Amino acid sequence: MDSIRDHCGIFGVFNSPDAARLTYFGLHALQHRGQESCGIVTSSYDSGRQKKVMSAVRDFGLVLDVFNDRSLFHSSLKGRSAIGHTRYSTSGSSVNRANIQPFHVQYKDGNLAVAHNGNLSNGPQLRRIFSDQGTLFQSTSDTELILHLISQSRQKHQIDQILEALAQVQGGYALALLTDESLIAVRDPNGFRPLSLGMIKKTNGDDTEGYCIASETCAFDLIGAQYIRDVEPGEVIIIDQESTQKRAFVTKHFESPHRGVSQCVFEYIYFSRPDSLVYGEMVDKVRRKCGKQLAHDAPVPRVASEEKAPLVISVPDSSNTATLGYVSECQKLGYRCKYDIGLIRNHYVGRTFISPGQDSREMRVRCKFNTVDGLLKDRIVVVVDDSIVRGTTAKLLIKMIRDAGAKEVHFRIASPTVISPCFYGMDFPSKEELLSSKFDDVGAIETWLGVDSLAYLSIDSLKKAVSDAHDSPYGYCDACFTGDYPVPVSSCVSKEAYD
Amino acid sequence: MDSIRDHCGIFGVFNSPDAARLTYFGLHALQHRGQESCGIVTSSYDSGRQKKVMSAVRDFGLVLDVFNDRSLFHSSLKGRSAIGHTRYSTSGSSVNRANIQPFHVQYKDGNLAVAHNGNLSNGPQLRRIFSDQGTLFQSTSDTELILHLISQSRQKHQIDQILEALAQVQGGYALALLTDESLIAVRDPNGFRPLSLGMIKKTNGDDTEGYCIASETCAFDLIGAQYIRDVEPGEVIIIDQESTQKRAFVTKHFESPHRGVSQCVFEYIYFSRPDSLVYGEMVDKVRRKCGKQLAHDAPVPRVASEEKAPLVISVPDSSNTATLGYVSECQKLGYRCKYDIGLIRNHYVGRTFISPGQDSREMRVRCKFNTVDGLLKDRIVVVVDDSIVRGTTAKLLIKMIRDAGAKEVHFRIASPTVISPCFYGMDFPSKEELLSSKFDDVGAIETWLGVDSLAYLSIDSLKKAVSDAHDSPYGYCDACFTGDYPVPVSSCVSKEAYD
Amino acid sequence: MDSIRDHCGIFGVFNSPDAARLTYFGLHALQHRGQESCGIVTSSYDSGRQKKVMSAVRDFGLVLDVFNDRSLFHSSLKGRSAIGHTRYSTSGSSVNRANIQPFHVQYKDGNLAVAHNGNLSNGPQLRRIFSDQGTLFQSTSDTELILHLISQSRQKHQIDQILEALAQVQGGYALALLTDESLIAVRDPNGFRPLSLGMIKKTNGDDTEGYCIASETCAFDLIGAQYIRDVEPGEVIIIDQESTQKRAFVTKHFESPHRGVSQCVFEYIYFSRPDSLVYGEMVDKVRRKCGKQLAHDAPVPRVASEEKAPLVISVPDSSNTATLGYVSECQKLGYRCKYDIGLIRNHYVGRTFISPGQDSREMRVRCKFNTVDGLLKDRIVVVVDDSIVRGTTAKLLIKMIRDAGAKEVHFRIASPTVISPCFYGMDFPSKEELLSSKFDDVGAIETWLGVDSLAYLSIDSLKKAVSDAHDSPYGYCDACFTGDYPVPVSSCVSKEAYD
Amino acid sequence: MDSIRDHCGIFGVFNSPDAARLTYFGLHALQHRGQESCGIVTSSYDSGRQKKVMSAVRDFGLVLDVFNDRSLFHSSLKGRSAIGHTRYSTSGSSVNRANIQPFHVQYKDGNLAVAHNGNLSNGPQLRRIFSDQGTLFQSTSDTELILHLISQSRQKHQIDQILEALAQVQGGYALALLTDESLIAVRDPNGFRPLSLGMIKKTNGDDTEGYCIASETCAFDLIGAQYIRDVEPGEVIIIDQESTQKRAFVTKHFESPHRGVSQCVFEYIYFSRPDSLVYGEMVDKVRRKCGKQLAHDAPVPRVASEEKAPLVISVPDSSNTATLGYVSECQKLGYRCKYDIGLIRNHYVGRTFISPGQDSREMRVRCKFNTVDGLLKDRIVVVVDDSIVRGTTAKLLIKMIRDAGAKEVHFRIASPTVISPCFYGMDFPSKEELLSSKFDDVGAIETWLGVDSLAYLSIDSLKKAVSDAHDSPYGYCDACFTGDYPVPVSSCVSKEAYD
Repeated sequence: MDSIRDHCGIFGVFNSPDAARLTYFGLHALQHRGQESCGIVTSSYDSGRQKKVMSAVRDFGLVLDVFNDRSLFHSSLKGRSAIGHTRYSTSGSSVNRANIQPFHVQYKDGNLAVAHNGNLSNGPQLRRIFSDQGTLFQSTSDTELILHLISQSRQKHQIDQILEALAQVQGGYALALLTDESLIAVRDPNGFRPLSLGMIKKTNGDDTEGYCIASETCAFDLIGAQYIRDVEPGEVIIIDQESTQKRAFVTKHFESPHRGVSQCVFEYIYFSRPDSLVYGEMVDKVRRKCGKQLAHDAPVPRVASEEKAPLVISVPDSSNTATLGYVSECQKLGYRCKYDIGLIRNHYVGRTFISPGQDSREMRVRCKFNTVDGLLKDRIVVVVDDSIVRGTTAKLLIKMIRDAGAKEVHFRIASPTVISPCFYGMDFPSKEELLSSKFDDVGAIETWLGVDSLAYLSIDSLKKAVSDAHDSPYGYCDACFTGDYPVPVSSCVSKEAYD
Repeated sequence: MDSIRDHCGIFGVFNSPDAARLTYFGLHALQHRGQESCGIVTSSYDSGRQKKVMSAVRDFGLVLDVFNDRSLFHSSLKGRSAIGHTRYSTSGSSVNRANIQPFHVQYKDGNLAVAHNGNLSNGPQLRRIFSDQGTLFQSTSDTELILHLISQSRQKHQIDQILEALAQVQGGYALALLTDESLIAVRDPNGFRPLSLGMIKKTNGDDTEGYCIASETCAFDLIGAQYIRDVEPGEVIIIDQESTQKRAFVTKHFESPHRGVSQCVFEYIYFSRPDSLVYGEMVDKVRRKCGKQLAHDAPVPRVASEEKAPLVISVPDSSNTATLGYVSECQKLGYRCKYDIGLIRNHYVGRTFISPGQDSREMRVRCKFNTVDGLLKDRIVVVVDDSIVRGTTAKLLIKMIRDAGAKEVHFRIASPTVISPCFYGMDFPSKEELLSSKFDDVGAIETWLGVDSLAYLSIDSLKKAVSDAHDSPYGYCDACFTGDYPVPVSSCVSKEAYD
Repeated sequence: MDSIRDHCGIFGVFNSPDAARLTYFGLHALQHRGQESCGIVTSSYDSGRQKKVMSAVRDFGLVLDVFNDRSLFHSSLKGRSAIGHTRYSTSGSSVNRANIQPFHVQYKDGNLAVAHNGNLSNGPQLRRIFSDQGTLFQSTSDTELILHLISQSRQKHQIDQILEALAQVQGGYALALLTDESLIAVRDPNGFRPLSLGMIKKTNGDDTEGYCIASETCAFDLIGAQYIRDVEPGEVIIIDQESTQKRAFVTKHFESPHRGVSQCVFEYIYFSRPDSLVYGEMVDKVRRKCGKQLAHDAPVPRVASEEKAPLVISVPDSSNTATLGYVSECQKLGYRCKYDIGLIRNHYVGRTFISPGQDSREMRVRCKFNTVDGLLKDRIVVVVDDSIVRGTTAKLLIKMIRDAGAKEVHFRIASPTVISPCFYGMDFPSKEELLSSKFDDVGAIETWLGVDSLAYLSIDSLKKAVSDAHDSPYGYCDACFTGDYPVPVSSCVSKEAYD
Repeated sequence: MDSIRDHCGIFGVFNSPDAARLTYFGLHALQHRGQESCGIVTSSYDSGRQKKVMSAVRDFGLVLDVFNDRSLFHSSLKGRSAIGHTRYSTSGSSVNRANIQPFHVQYKDGNLAVAHNGNLSNGPQLRRIFSDQGTLFQSTSDTELILHLISQSRQKHQIDQILEALAQVQGGYALALLTDESLIAVRDPNGFRPLSLGMIKKTNGDDTEGYCIASETCAFDLIGAQYIRDVEPGEVIIIDQESTQKRAFVTKHFESPHRGVSQCVFEYIYFSRPDSLVYGEMVDKVRRKCGKQLAHDAPVPRVASEEKAPLVISVPDSSNTATLGYVSECQKLGYRCKYDIGLIRNHYVGRTFISPGQDSREMRVRCKFNTVDGLLKDRIVVVVDDSIVRGTTAKLLIKMIRDAGAKEVHFRIASPTVISPCFYGMDFPSKEELLSSKFDDVGAIETWLGVDSLAYLSIDSLKKAVSDAHDSPYGYCDACFTGDYPVPVSSCVSKEAYD
């Protein structure tokens, strides 16, 4: 998939002597949610100054590169609570360091830090209001708005300030807030973005030591934490010293008519790791169901019995599971076909990509993927991809598969046609840039891509796949496939709205 | 696989205006053969000094990190011919910068650079002889010996110097030599290490522009070069201006009774990428055959019909293809089983790994792999790995699979038991460190690993798999599985022999 | 001098195609005013987004290290106007990146950047008021307050916002403000900190091209700009497109009963470079006068005619000029003495200083200074230093001079005794740390330092020296010598007040 | 001075637990002798491998930047003996890392490291001989030759190998050799380059702990070592465990008809620090004598009594002492004149210098020097410089002094006219580039420089100054002033001879 990149992954820890280190590993597990930059903020008591202080390390780069022994253990990141953030990668050169999260500020009631996954759909309005009131902005991120709302609340208690602030924002957000006394986990009422709650046990024993939160549960697995449950749509969980002693949280809920109706279905399709629980279900399972449904919607071509069975290959690694489901269901439906590995992915990436001129995009794709030539030669090849956005990478892959000697190339997408941008936390191209916007019909796209056939999963099949996999009390947002936006969107919202 | 790491990958280009850039991409494609350090040496004509000069950029780090626009395009690496090298990763802190290849020296007949994949089995003796004669050593690598041998040859013509030098070394080596006038590709007579020859076409047209050599053909694919043939065991190919004009090479051959009998079979099992042609065959194909043979040697457990079929999972990515072969053959043999993806690999790596104390090794494994919990729960799981050396990673993976709820865990290795170290270019642990040395029988290993059963591919099955896949005129070295060393080895040879 | 370090140097350019580059050189000339960190912010028109944007490069390190070709010329720092800042060096490890100036924010009327030299004496009160109103703080610097004041002003015109903001701050400040349309130079009414205005001529011709401002005129010399005049105490100069066309500025003035009464006299004594015009006079000239006055207050010891004349040496480089004045006046007064170079300074500095344990401070001093042994042996040595704060470096220097064989060591300070910290922009130790606070009388200090005699310039002599050198319409602040603070200071103001 | 840069400074320590750290400080004191790169090699016993090993850290950059806590204390540079090297700065971009010293090799009798100050005049011949014999060269430095000579010696004892090697080289060299058992200090028979021997005392007590050697004694001062004596021309001092126990050295001498006749006089004029003992005398003293002689050769202009006395200024810092001598002698001779500080030097330097186009050289000079304008205005200014080579910096300085309003500018050089390049260890431009080669007479140079008068110290005066200062048993090389080369020089020797 060439161009949808989630805005970020978030993580938080409360009450562990290893807070920064656990956050480091948690962020590493969430690295796929953003590779541009990352950061950790910790809270500790400074005995010299006799008050709580926060420390931050933030930089461009991968988690394993930005932090080192010095920052994690020796000096910088002290304290028993921490939040962390990892952010998407852009190719832009003029990236703004001020946007690297978590943000960390001081206000009348102490220190405050926030890590945010999502996008505020009323961000531009809020920014204008604040701006008119004389508020300064240091970043171009709408996350900063949340901090201003908290700080400018007239409420006396911090938690009320936070609730008042949240009542004013709309859109998609999962938040990890760190205060001098607590870690606070929040999901927006619609439930756009995922957030899970876990328990950290003491190293030698069964006792609960502390709590952690993460965008995906694969982060819990890495640090040996135990999944408790999801933070619910519209829920605010306050984890403080008392919570950890009593093993019970104070939670608050937003009132909203739309509570939990809009969990991002794209997390299942592409963003999340298959080994994560998201919205209470294994991503792996949902993807497999999507693959199965795709077999019903668009099976492999039926071939004469003397002909070799079509080879079904995935675009590694994101479409692997859907492909397995697709193949097994096609076979069950009586279609001859064979799963195989026809594309090899080179996972080594560098901090920079040299600029080799005109062929830059092609070289990027070739640096990442190669075909297994002998395997594909003279075969009918069915390529399963998880989704298609701009189509540029797909076009280059198809060409490589053709060059490897494939007799026919059929393209199957384990999700519906993407027709509308996301305004709730995914980094989508504009509507004009979407492949679906450029052509009148599938036939035209097939020609442009150079495939013998192209088929998508239908919306209904997607819905069926998701509900088959999981009996959720909540609904899903499929605005990118349908254009039905559950929360109204400002006309001008875009990634660079405030740049 | 926890501890076999190839010494390196080599690449060379002759007669391209883009020599350094092609080498950069070629090395990136060979990155899996070594991640510790890399380097490129180019040859160009310095009009100021009116002679040929060589330029080098070498450093610790990944290919995409070490080189940048400046080194590739603007200043450092000029010229129409180049060689490159990528080297294995160690965790040692006291790594010696002097050992980063390609080496580059000056001698009586001009500049000379070499990139070497392999190990000289008579290195210690040669080093002692040279040392006694008063020769200085700047590195602790046996590659330096080849340069001294060439330089001290009394032959008049450079090619004769090289042949005389090569006649004196024993062991495994594939070489890319760069001189002021030519690129020279060499494979040792036994043919231990692979090396292929390719053709570079002009950007706009079909004409041959230049030639390239690489440890594996996946490097040709990335730069759009065309595979011609393997450099043969005992062959020396000289590529110079005349060759490119006439499209014909001068080649020399060593006389050796052992010509071509010892191609490293481990390249097929683990080292090489599945999308590469090695020894004239796709690695993917050989691995699939190994998996199929493994099904005959050790199929999945037969389960009652009411029980769910055993789940067969691979340790990604190196055992993926073997696993596919294994599953399809088990099914053909009438064993119920199902291929699935039960381990997810996090491919993000950093320049350093922080030292989190005692649990360091476990965290390294967990940072790399996670289980797909829902999938494995209450299932009979058959794990296929390509090979097993120390067993430490395997033991941790087994534990993770058990923790994910697997009812039974069966471990299948798509290669025979490793019983002896390699002295021809692989970075093996000592015999004492091999898992097979630590236990008397397979039962004891099963217990230690915590598996319900463990089985290896037999030597005969390996041989059959390789010969089924490919009708090679040459034989293979399987010393690591059999202890039969085709070239005698000095008692004291080890990686640190000269440190 | 061991521990007074100015907070910073500031620089600004309006209307030059070379704005960033001129700022780079200007900051290099001001490097002595702060070596911890530096930054440049430029303003340019972004034709893509059709609006004015600001770009920033800021980092820890020296000017010549932080900026490079890429940041200055190729991409980052575009635009025809720029401001820059260089900040003092601390040994602290937990330095806060958020405090690196210039600050750059967005508010309702566009972009706003500020570079500030000084300290607001009512900073803590302002911060409390803002904080109570719900304002967030991202840095711990009081410079941020100025931006909030501007942003929260209800005035319609930007210049009125700025004037309103400035009316609320007290203390010492010289400011370079960059807006989307103008460069604004400000000095506080008291005139604590210096700021000069210069003119940039076109490269080939005499025409004025643009304007520049700088803490000291040595920055103008380096870029070939011409000094026009000082920004006056309490003056706000607005330089915009119209100014440059008409060669006339709009200036505003604060009403203040204290206008211009408090120019920091320490700029003359230590901070500024001798080749700078400060407050309208060459620093070199004032220092020479101080040295001459010191000769009246405390001449060299009179020695018997058969004895060699006392050797007068300076602590290079800051006391060189005062020493010359001292020697010539001593000679005029009939005291035999000879100027010589008895201490050699090693100017090479590194990015870090290794921690060699207990003797760290001593090694720092020895790395910087060495004695000229042969010269000092058996001589009566008079050491002239510009000032003495903690006395720790002085003590070590005296010991080195003794070790070099000096028969007697007399210490002469070309400024009065420092008895009070500065709260207007200098980085002073606390009162307790001042050498003068630790001992009851000069005799006790002499003993501690290990000198035969110690003498300071008297306050009256300092005043005479300054007035002899320059007939200024304005007065000076000498609070550090007298304790008379011209602007009331909050009890709690310290460098870390808000950390 | 614009272009003479010494090749390097060397330092060595034997028998100190702090060997690497003392070398670090020693090199910092010698930083003025070379700023391009530096390195340290230590020798220690590796108990694991049960043998002596050497460790090296070498890089481009200043001493305080290249080494850090990690390399000095924690891991890399272990052992009780060490040598270090600091090397001159070039502006070239294609600098060769292989040339960074100390060199470190292994040969039949163990490890061997060398740090070399100087140039071998028969280097090219030796290199050709070795090359013909089949020796490889890894660097383009002639220092490598010394290692090959030692290694290829047929002598049995290491010290005899070294003596045999040294017997074959000609030219200027001071060497610090580190072997597994000893530190060896060498000066060539002619005595071209300086080298001193010092004693390190135990921290708490008077006992000798170990020994050290350094190019200049200022390195001893910094580490608190005590100067013993110079290594004599043609002397080889072997410091080993026995020496330190017995406090006596084995020394060997070369037989040479030219023993000690050629100590480089330029060390006194420019290279060495004034606070160093060189050839047994304080550099400061010799420079003062040169200044005094210059007063006899070319006093300040005599001016009418109503006119202000000429101002004599130095080009800081290298000509400071000579200027003091010049002024005092002019005054003694009855010439009215006044010493003052008219040029201020900005000592901050960066790792890179940005390329500001055509005015690059001018900006470099302006970044370093500024005039004190008020002082120079309308005055007759006499500028004293230590030497003049290319004259380019001088020309720019003169222009700046004129721009500052000087009425007349007279230029006085405290050394004779440089007419010939150095082939014994100084980095000189070619003869064609010397200012003296470009003009027929002093009048033409005066015009080109833009001075009212120019005068040099005569050769005879230089000789008198040196002999007045110091009654040395040895003579001096003044080939750069006279063209009389004491050791024959190959026609082709140049810095890049072997590049």
